[in-house]
Amino acid sequence: MTHEPARRGSHSLDPHLHRYAARATGMTASEVRALFAVASRPEVVSLAGGMPNLAALPLDSLSAEVGELIAAEGLTALQYGSAHGVPALREHICDVMALEGITGHPDDMVVTVGSQMALDLVTRIFCDPGDVVLAEGPSYVGALGTFASYQADVVHVAMDDQGLQPEALREALAATQRAGRRVKFLYTVPTFQNPAGVTLAVSRRAEVLDICAAAGVLVVEDNPYGLLGFDGQTYPALRSMDHENVIYLGSFSKTFASGLRVGWALAPHAVREKLVLAAESAALCAPTLNQLIVSRYLETHDWKGQIKSFQQTYRERRDAMLSALEQHMPAGCTWTRPDGGFFVWLTVPEGVDTKAMQPRAVTQRVAYVPGTGFYADGFGSRQMRLSFCYPTPERITEGVRRLAGVLADEIDLLATFGPTASRLMSGPQTPSPDTE
Amino acid sequence: MTHEPARRGSHSLDPHLHRYAARATGMTASEVRALFAVASRPEVVSLAGGMPNLAALPLDSLSAEVGELIAAEGLTALQYGSAHGVPALREHICDVMALEGITGHPDDMVVTVGSQMALDLVTRIFCDPGDVVLAEGPSYVGALGTFASYQADVVHVAMDDQGLQPEALREALAATQRAGRRVKFLYTVPTFQNPAGVTLAVSRRAEVLDICAAAGVLVVEDNPYGLLGFDGQTYPALRSMDHENVIYLGSFSKTFASGLRVGWALAPHAVREKLVLAAESAALCAPTLNQLIVSRYLETHDWKGQIKSFQQTYRERRDAMLSALEQHMPAGCTWTRPDGGFFVWLTVPEGVDTKAMQPRAVTQRVAYVPGTGFYADGFGSRQMRLSFCYPTPERITEGVRRLAGVLADEIDLLATFGPTASRLMSGPQTPSPDTE
Repeated sequence: MTHEPARRGSHSLDPHLHRYAARATGMTASEVRALFAVASRPEVVSLAGGMPNLAALPLDSLSAEVGELIAAEGLTALQYGSAHGVPALREHICDVMALEGITGHPDDMVVTVGSQMALDLVTRIFCDPGDVVLAEGPSYVGALGTFASYQADVVHVAMDDQGLQPEALREALAATQRAGRRVKFLYTVPTFQNPAGVTLAVSRRAEVLDICAAAGVLVVEDNPYGLLGFDGQTYPALRSMDHENVIYLGSFSKTFASGLRVGWALAPHAVREKLVLAAESAALCAPTLNQLIVSRYLETHDWKGQIKSFQQTYRERRDAMLSALEQHMPAGCTWTRPDGGFFVWLTVPEGVDTKAMQPRAVTQRVAYVPGTGFYADGFGSRQMRLSFCYPTPERITEGVRRLAGVLADEIDLLATFGPTASRLMSGPQTPSPDTE
Repeated sequence: MTHEPARRGSHSLDPHLHRYAARATGMTASEVRALFAVASRPEVVSLAGGMPNLAALPLDSLSAEVGELIAAEGLTALQYGSAHGVPALREHICDVMALEGITGHPDDMVVTVGSQMALDLVTRIFCDPGDVVLAEGPSYVGALGTFASYQADVVHVAMDDQGLQPEALREALAATQRAGRRVKFLYTVPTFQNPAGVTLAVSRRAEVLDICAAAGVLVVEDNPYGLLGFDGQTYPALRSMDHENVIYLGSFSKTFASGLRVGWALAPHAVREKLVLAAESAALCAPTLNQLIVSRYLETHDWKGQIKSFQQTYRERRDAMLSALEQHMPAGCTWTRPDGGFFVWLTVPEGVDTKAMQPRAVTQRVAYVPGTGFYADGFGSRQMRLSFCYPTPERITEGVRRLAGVLADEIDLLATFGPTASRLMSGPQTPSPDTE
């Protein structure tokens, strides 16, 4: 039996267009997504994605452990749990956070489906439409998507090689307050930042916290990469210095396995209660099986040794990328030199538009993410993010070599015909979020 | 190094109170949660929860399969996937939906963290604050929580033993339109409804669809229990009769394993695209491992046979509950007689307040969910939901016997001293969502 659909709006490409909430207006398909499909072909070196390298994981012992877990605790692992999260896992997470100086209580934590969900819940409970979120410029593309989906406006705060600039933060707060706008929180990835690859200097951390506390603005510290310092070094988490005004977001996506989607938020007690209620309404609970897998992994595996192995892998790849950049990049290009994490942030000569250049780069079998995706305000056309996390050092070297060739051609064209942007169409910029 | 927190608001129990979004106002801790903790003691028969019975699952073969999956496909299973969902799983889901007459395309589906997340995403893309959602009265408590968290207002539509009343639906639409309010969708659990345990008559289904289509109102069909008919019977899904105006939500929580948190939405094509974008911003992607586990289970296990075994288990428990109700309940109580699903809806004599009575019931070692939690408008004080999914038939019989005793005492007190509500404090009603 077939039923006649409503006729209303049926001439539109999307007959539901008149029905969407205001927050859905900004949710349009990314024009770079088609390019991502091309970029995932094996002949293309992708410096675009943020997928962690999992090759070093001990799959055989994990396989045995998870099998045993299901056989022995299947009735718990396959059953609903609480929205708060599995208690044993929350205790283990406290040990993980202690490595960056955090003394947290398992009660003040909520386990989420990756830290992306933690960020979604924090935004949900704090941001009314029109509220302002301060964020580094550039900032994590997936966070910008979340803020947009709650109709919060992002005001970027400038960074330099030492991370967020305290003076720029003061100015941004003063300007938004003069404009009569409500700032809800500062969103920051202080350590091995995505996408800039810089770290907030330890000497600036207390100042940043002071400025926010004085202005009555919360700090949301997103720290997926903090344990991936290439020399095993760690930095004191902002949360370790202020437990009342900082909401801390953590994740096992980079230190263990992204496909399990296990992250968490550590929050002041009253906020944590709201987060649990929001988590219930968002997904009832994070998957019990995945929480028990992580909990058991932390109990039975040498997880610190595993993180050391990740550090070494990523250091080699960072080295390969920096060497290749040094060797191949045309004059006028500059880039950051990360001492941890996944990303290098590249600035190209004035007149080159990284978004407009992207299809040409993919034709030359190399992909990156144009810089505009990491800004809510259209900035970033001279920047791009290069990821060294996933390809092998050899592929990274080859990718950078190809990219340098594309850039050299672009600079030649620029000298002859003028800026890229006027030669190629460039629509609105909404790259697909990649990874937290 | 310890940092001074902001002083602002520090005299409040929650120093962040002035910072929350308007949508967070309604997120207050449930007063029944403390009772739930008591209700989970082994000596209490809980007829409150909606946890499926997993005892019949083949844990040994699942253990072997999942172990093999991690050994053979670990690098995929433990890695990020797309927000759209694992393609093979989406194809298998089409086979599952075909059992209820649905012909869907894998492209038009998005895999979510349980169908709760699908409902969250649907509400996110359609509901502005103040928009109206129509829902059966009573309706699923977790859905009411989600609608509240997006500040949508619920208007209930009356049911009878044949489910949603078409005439009541027409009236509700006319009344909201007269009031100048925007109705975004009808949320319905047409088959083996939670909490009422009734099913929308097949003869009413086309009429309900017609009414909504004519009014330009979408239908969100939530169908977690549809395959749990006690005689193996199925009903044609609303989506099988109208593929343009129905968004269908499905789940493996009741037919396989709730702790994996794998659900889905099947939506008109344009809506599906928005759902994928919303899913990216909410959690990047559903856990890859869990999707591959379900996919492999559907390939290698006799999942239809497993569902038959679930049907039989729940039929025995339904029988135990109905027999015990028949045998023990005092005069003046009425209840529904479900032919599938998890729940019986009980109405008690006038003057008895099920919420006020609850602590006394727990003292007598039996727990239930008071009816007010299933209404957004304060109705339901003479109702309660009784779940027969989790306890054994013997425990169900004993639980109903205890409950009947509590009710008999309550009716005696009522005859002597007047209504319960005036004898016991009864605050605002926001029970914790239990299960989808």
